[in-house]
Amino acid sequence: MKKWLSPALLIITFLLAGIAHYAHLNPIVQFVIASISVIFVAGFLGRATESVAHYAGQRLGGFLNATFGNAAELIIAIFLIREGLYDMVKASLTGSIIGNLLLVLGASLFAGGLKFKVQNYNVSLAGLSGSLMIVAVISLFVPAVFLNTHSITATETDTLSLIVAGILILSYLAWLLFSMVTHKDYLADVTDDREQELPHEHEPAWSKGRSILYLVLATVMVALVSEWLVGTLETFTTQFGLSELFVGAFLVAIIGNAAEHSAAILLAMKNKIGASVEIAVGSSLQIALFVAPVLIFVSYFTGDTMDIVFSTIELVAIAVSVFIAKSITQDGSTNWYEGLMLLVVYIMLGVSFFLV
Amino acid sequence: MKKWLSPALLIITFLLAGIAHYAHLNPIVQFVIASISVIFVAGFLGRATESVAHYAGQRLGGFLNATFGNAAELIIAIFLIREGLYDMVKASLTGSIIGNLLLVLGASLFAGGLKFKVQNYNVSLAGLSGSLMIVAVISLFVPAVFLNTHSITATETDTLSLIVAGILILSYLAWLLFSMVTHKDYLADVTDDREQELPHEHEPAWSKGRSILYLVLATVMVALVSEWLVGTLETFTTQFGLSELFVGAFLVAIIGNAAEHSAAILLAMKNKIGASVEIAVGSSLQIALFVAPVLIFVSYFTGDTMDIVFSTIELVAIAVSVFIAKSITQDGSTNWYEGLMLLVVYIMLGVSFFLV
Amino acid sequence: MKKWLSPALLIITFLLAGIAHYAHLNPIVQFVIASISVIFVAGFLGRATESVAHYAGQRLGGFLNATFGNAAELIIAIFLIREGLYDMVKASLTGSIIGNLLLVLGASLFAGGLKFKVQNYNVSLAGLSGSLMIVAVISLFVPAVFLNTHSITATETDTLSLIVAGILILSYLAWLLFSMVTHKDYLADVTDDREQELPHEHEPAWSKGRSILYLVLATVMVALVSEWLVGTLETFTTQFGLSELFVGAFLVAIIGNAAEHSAAILLAMKNKIGASVEIAVGSSLQIALFVAPVLIFVSYFTGDTMDIVFSTIELVAIAVSVFIAKSITQDGSTNWYEGLMLLVVYIMLGVSFFLV
Repeated sequence: MKKWLSPALLIITFLLAGIAHYAHLNPIVQFVIASISVIFVAGFLGRATESVAHYAGQRLGGFLNATFGNAAELIIAIFLIREGLYDMVKASLTGSIIGNLLLVLGASLFAGGLKFKVQNYNVSLAGLSGSLMIVAVISLFVPAVFLNTHSITATETDTLSLIVAGILILSYLAWLLFSMVTHKDYLADVTDDREQELPHEHEPAWSKGRSILYLVLATVMVALVSEWLVGTLETFTTQFGLSELFVGAFLVAIIGNAAEHSAAILLAMKNKIGASVEIAVGSSLQIALFVAPVLIFVSYFTGDTMDIVFSTIELVAIAVSVFIAKSITQDGSTNWYEGLMLLVVYIMLGVSFFLV
Repeated sequence: MKKWLSPALLIITFLLAGIAHYAHLNPIVQFVIASISVIFVAGFLGRATESVAHYAGQRLGGFLNATFGNAAELIIAIFLIREGLYDMVKASLTGSIIGNLLLVLGASLFAGGLKFKVQNYNVSLAGLSGSLMIVAVISLFVPAVFLNTHSITATETDTLSLIVAGILILSYLAWLLFSMVTHKDYLADVTDDREQELPHEHEPAWSKGRSILYLVLATVMVALVSEWLVGTLETFTTQFGLSELFVGAFLVAIIGNAAEHSAAILLAMKNKIGASVEIAVGSSLQIALFVAPVLIFVSYFTGDTMDIVFSTIELVAIAVSVFIAKSITQDGSTNWYEGLMLLVVYIMLGVSFFLV
Repeated sequence: MKKWLSPALLIITFLLAGIAHYAHLNPIVQFVIASISVIFVAGFLGRATESVAHYAGQRLGGFLNATFGNAAELIIAIFLIREGLYDMVKASLTGSIIGNLLLVLGASLFAGGLKFKVQNYNVSLAGLSGSLMIVAVISLFVPAVFLNTHSITATETDTLSLIVAGILILSYLAWLLFSMVTHKDYLADVTDDREQELPHEHEPAWSKGRSILYLVLATVMVALVSEWLVGTLETFTTQFGLSELFVGAFLVAIIGNAAEHSAAILLAMKNKIGASVEIAVGSSLQIALFVAPVLIFVSYFTGDTMDIVFSTIELVAIAVSVFIAKSITQDGSTNWYEGLMLLVVYIMLGVSFFLV
């Protein structure tokens, strides 16, 4: 393939998707063009992340990818909150958490496992991430149980939501301090050492500065295309009679996570499974411990507090995803069947949400 | 003991049990004779499995044992479905899963642990089996939650049941591919290697061909005696006022798993704990991922679909068994107290089911 | 600091707290004096335990500390049962379990983690304790589910409670047999060996006999001061409008566990993290498997059986604490962030209980 072909297609499909969006073309046309464009921008983001990860180390690279990937989701959610669509926000948060833990992680382990028999990564990081996911589930579960079993006023629910949200944000900041500063080497990937001994198979095509620039640029492009796609979905799906819950939790989340998705699979197939897990698990941790609590504060400052109480099936979907993901990641060793199990659970949840 | 004594007793008690059954003797007489016979046929099956395991390796032997053991259960359940006794089928499936995970596994670890201080087996297999049990629990749990929290029609419930059942069967076939083909050596028992170095304590009494023949023969005998026993139980237990739930989930399951039971304990006491775990956990996986879904399809083709929605206490019993069994097996090392904990949970569930 | 100052303050504050209590001074005065006194007696108990642990080994020392610490709670609970305050008993049992698993363990890991980057202890012990905590949760969970989903009479509930209580006590005695006799060395702390090679930093100040005497004396003093403090709380807190559930589950439990608390943190900061975990986890195991069942039998013999059915939020609080504590302890390696996660869950539960 010619070297200039890929960037050219990236720019052309992106521009076409933008034109289709702002010219208010037929939603189905918009959807098709944006869907093609998202493949190229996600691929671009994946290469940029990989290049940054080369300079920054797998873990920081994974964190950057998760953060840039979730920036899009945060922006979309803030728009939804301004319109008071709290249920859609919670559905897309739920979908984002289970999408990362089941679909992104599952596809990465499966794709990586088809190429490599067993892939290993730092077991301490796996254990800690799993525990932190349990804390996130508890933070959603406890307020819901207290609300259902006892008569708490709306004001008390808001207070509880804000306090829990504050605690979660502090926990997340402490996690960054722990994982990036005090215990950075303790959580380093086992493959990092070997890499420094072995000659690199692929030298990155871009310099450090250019990689960072492309990472930011690619993130912005992904955010824009995602938004255009989401905009078409509402009109598009009403014709097929899909429920808002299914659209929010599955379609929006799959498209919104396209960036993490492509980057994580690409890294897994290059045997950098540690970075794949970091992207998938790190992204869902960021959604649960940072994005969701920030949205609660945003809603508070815009006048009407969104409470932290998710619906029963959302809670069950999140809890179930955390349990199976924790069970699979905790030994620090992965294979294709573990990926398949995550995908199986994702499909079962998808079918169930679809039928509601 | 004379060498011919054991086979003679096996054949005589088996014939007596058959005569008692077909001559419609007093149910209590039938029950006593069949109970004595089951000890001998289960012992025969245990020795045949052990002999096959010698030739085939511990894991394939364990798989064969689990499959032959569950063949009996599958046949009995199909008879029950034809009579529309769906609740009894679900109760016996529940009983079979918790019986294998708590009673068979618990008794094996306990008996093995009394003889050996610590017994070890492949930790990767333990982790994967545990995750697969979680997937099985999720597959039962999610439809039940969706049914209870949302108004789903009976047709949608049937559709969901059939889809989930199809996914589970495919997962089970993929598991066989994974554990028997692509990752066979990865999951091999750690003791396998040592065995090949050490001289064998007991050379198997039978040739390879004869062992396989005896395995099939023993399975058929166990299936027949189990069926005769189950037939007496219904008449027998009504006199003592036991609930159908208790009879289905405990008495039927204990007798139906007599084969796995005796084989697993025998292997544990010969320090082949890997094969014991394979029988107990493998058998419950087979029930949850293969037997139960097949029964749903069988019911669908016989006209009236049995849904996958188990009652709350059945779900709780299964979930609780999976959690404790996973917690105990995940470190790949066992001792008598771990066996005791499983038995304690089994007794607590038994008492609770008995009191309902 | 002068050597005689610390014992002098211990005795003086203890006597003042006793005088304030028996002279029925203003409850707020009683509360302040008793709170100051509890710091000194808890410190005394901590040093006595550490000294005994030096002679007896970390694990037996931890067990002794847990037992002496829980003696106070058992005595207080018996007084409450005599007055028929079953809800308060259950609230304080709940508070004691979650207080040990979250507050005591969390503060120990956090304090130890600030001083040492990573602390290790016996991973087999961690796995077994975690499984035993799951058994304890199941023993509370199963009766509650059966009671809520089926119509069981009050007599049947009492029978079930007594049977489960009996099984738990036998399980606990078997655990002592296992951990103190048959598998004592298997569960020994990894640091025990190194200690015998290294010269001791601090020789214990007291002889073996004197250490034991002081341990008993300190426990009695802690029990007395705790009781005096609890006595003031009821009067004291009614003025601030705190619910009995919050007072029972948090204030009573925090003060009642002051002994375990100070000892566990002290040991963690001396890198004896194995003993800290033994105190915190061992103490909650003792509450769930021994103290609670004994109280059920005590209530039975005093005429009116207290059932084993805890309220939903108590069950959720216990289950949640066990899950996160198990997840964090199971790898046998700890750091400050793991301690923080436990404290975060404790605070979230505390805020939720406070708002009810």
